[in-house]
Amino acid sequence: MRPVAIVGIGKTPFGAFPDRDLRSLAVEAGEKCLADARVSPSQVEAFHLGNFAGPSFVGQNHLAPYISGALGMTGIPATRFEAACASSGSAFFHAVSAVGAGLYDIVMVNGVEKMTSQPTPRVAEILAGAGDTAGEVKAGATFPALFGMIARRHMHEYGTTREMMAAVAVKNHGNGAKNPLAHMRKNVTMEQVLAGKPVAEPLTVFDCSLISDGAAAVIIAPLERAAEFTGKAVRVLGIAQTSDQVALDQKDDITTFHAVRRAGEKAYKMAGVSPQEVDVAELHDCFTIAEIIATEDLAFVEKGQGGPYVLSGATCLSGERPVNTSGGLKAKGHPVGATGVGQICDVVQQLRRDAGERQVRKHSVGLAQNLGGSGATAVVTILGEAK
Amino acid sequence: MRPVAIVGIGKTPFGAFPDRDLRSLAVEAGEKCLADARVSPSQVEAFHLGNFAGPSFVGQNHLAPYISGALGMTGIPATRFEAACASSGSAFFHAVSAVGAGLYDIVMVNGVEKMTSQPTPRVAEILAGAGDTAGEVKAGATFPALFGMIARRHMHEYGTTREMMAAVAVKNHGNGAKNPLAHMRKNVTMEQVLAGKPVAEPLTVFDCSLISDGAAAVIIAPLERAAEFTGKAVRVLGIAQTSDQVALDQKDDITTFHAVRRAGEKAYKMAGVSPQEVDVAELHDCFTIAEIIATEDLAFVEKGQGGPYVLSGATCLSGERPVNTSGGLKAKGHPVGATGVGQICDVVQQLRRDAGERQVRKHSVGLAQNLGGSGATAVVTILGEAK
Repeated sequence: MRPVAIVGIGKTPFGAFPDRDLRSLAVEAGEKCLADARVSPSQVEAFHLGNFAGPSFVGQNHLAPYISGALGMTGIPATRFEAACASSGSAFFHAVSAVGAGLYDIVMVNGVEKMTSQPTPRVAEILAGAGDTAGEVKAGATFPALFGMIARRHMHEYGTTREMMAAVAVKNHGNGAKNPLAHMRKNVTMEQVLAGKPVAEPLTVFDCSLISDGAAAVIIAPLERAAEFTGKAVRVLGIAQTSDQVALDQKDDITTFHAVRRAGEKAYKMAGVSPQEVDVAELHDCFTIAEIIATEDLAFVEKGQGGPYVLSGATCLSGERPVNTSGGLKAKGHPVGATGVGQICDVVQQLRRDAGERQVRKHSVGLAQNLGGSGATAVVTILGEAK
Repeated sequence: MRPVAIVGIGKTPFGAFPDRDLRSLAVEAGEKCLADARVSPSQVEAFHLGNFAGPSFVGQNHLAPYISGALGMTGIPATRFEAACASSGSAFFHAVSAVGAGLYDIVMVNGVEKMTSQPTPRVAEILAGAGDTAGEVKAGATFPALFGMIARRHMHEYGTTREMMAAVAVKNHGNGAKNPLAHMRKNVTMEQVLAGKPVAEPLTVFDCSLISDGAAAVIIAPLERAAEFTGKAVRVLGIAQTSDQVALDQKDDITTFHAVRRAGEKAYKMAGVSPQEVDVAELHDCFTIAEIIATEDLAFVEKGQGGPYVLSGATCLSGERPVNTSGGLKAKGHPVGATGVGQICDVVQQLRRDAGERQVRKHSVGLAQNLGGSGATAVVTILGEAK
């Protein structure tokens, strides 16, 4: 594989935008990205779209040419990639693989979701489609219930406490309050989180990510051509996508996501980077327990130590390894199909030193981890400065 | 790109199967394919799924790991590709590109759709999601209406007649009657077709493809390794995926599909094959007019000559260039997400000389053309004997 660089990023705000349709969000992110990369639409050789459930949320399918056509790109492969909440992470993985292998030079990866036009019970039903509908969903288990079981088991096995999960929420809301593009920009206290309304015991409303609209886009190119487009290229050091069984009851251990472990191992190996060398990370905190497990599965800490790690402050903005400086899915928002590429954009901002008051001190190596369902899909990306 | 070969194929029957769920169909095709290729699940390095609208038809999303897990494949990239009716054609395009570029050696491409569990009006609504829902669909145009307009314009511009379109239906039903896996196995006469119940003038029920359940799968590998798996490998000579605007009103000429023309040109060039060298083809006859236009866009004949061409018998089983020897979408059936890979399987059968009483005399070069929407996505694949 030849080295690949991210030469442009573009994001919409994440939030609830009743006046915006799905395509206009994706086009806004795409146009910002083209401008950032100083690339014209006619230079783009392939368009990869990450979208989880546009047909169910807004009735529009065949979304890749629908969006690329509006961006002024026709005559190229335009393809939608779906891998639940890891849809745009997967679109990015396939794009990096293709550019790395020499199939294309310039590819746009766009991720989008428009969720808030549906009432919340219907949103929960659509999201449940990422689980095993014939098994666990039929038995009544939506994702808050599945992650509630995961949290309860993690508490039982490792002594993880409600305070440790709450610490994830307090930290991520604090970061989101500083992010002008975040959905929910307000600080919350440990007391507020612990007193939160129950959703699926032991998870409260403060443990759950947001239902959001939004889009994010990146343009990638061979590293050797990056200087043609931008002075702020970021290099893809390592990347991997892996899979596991969809149903939680088919896993031997629900306190770890094998797909994340395996994707992490592959990405670290490809990057030639150890977990301890990661300076800053965006992790898939669809629920607070998921961030704790991710810090373990990605070997930032030993198994079972994710709870004490966040409680120690190590993952705060000023800590040894800041996690979710964007506010994460928890506070920045979680427009499902946009999340994977949104995380990449956020890590790129840190490596470019463009993160404003959220800028971290150490920014040589960044990591983004995107999860689909209760761990059936995982994408891990490691980014570094383009020297 | 290194040469790529198809080393195994597997198909379910296409039809209405009230007792079968989506996954069981995909698993049946996948298992048949593994057996045909003599490949074990653990040898497969990536899983590409083509599916248009599983979430809308059966409520299940995140289908790639849901199916690959049931086939005994975990820990690998498992990704769903969606490009309307060209979903599995697109999944195949990306798989061939990846193996050709050296990213993987052994990849399974599976296509599946389960449509008959929904009532027909709901099926039409779901299919309409492949068009521009905010524009043409809101104005009342479902796909039969759009292709009705295309047919009417083709008749006006080129003198194409109802008899010419009917000839497509008569031919494809004749072929389908001989195909043990076809959905509708009955011959129809020219008189019957011309007297068919109107759907969207000038199209009658005999001009429209079927609503079907079904799945198809292929396994691909580098040509140099093909002999490890099978004695019946078929080589991918050329392949291209391209895109165009989704809405029909954004096209300057609705009697030609620019995406098909461009994909054809690219695939012919890659293959080093001229249109006249194609011996047998599976073309995307979602409506009879679409087959006529495809023979023009792929340069089998001059623009406007597709109607007289089919009427002449040239595309019959015994003609100079048999088209849709499987029965096509018209008679074999059109489980949307399975269609692209199903076409590939049908061409492979001809090149392997395994097509039974439908076997054509000349079978050195075959072509498959998969269309998404009213031409916003096109995939053209050219296959040849592996010498």
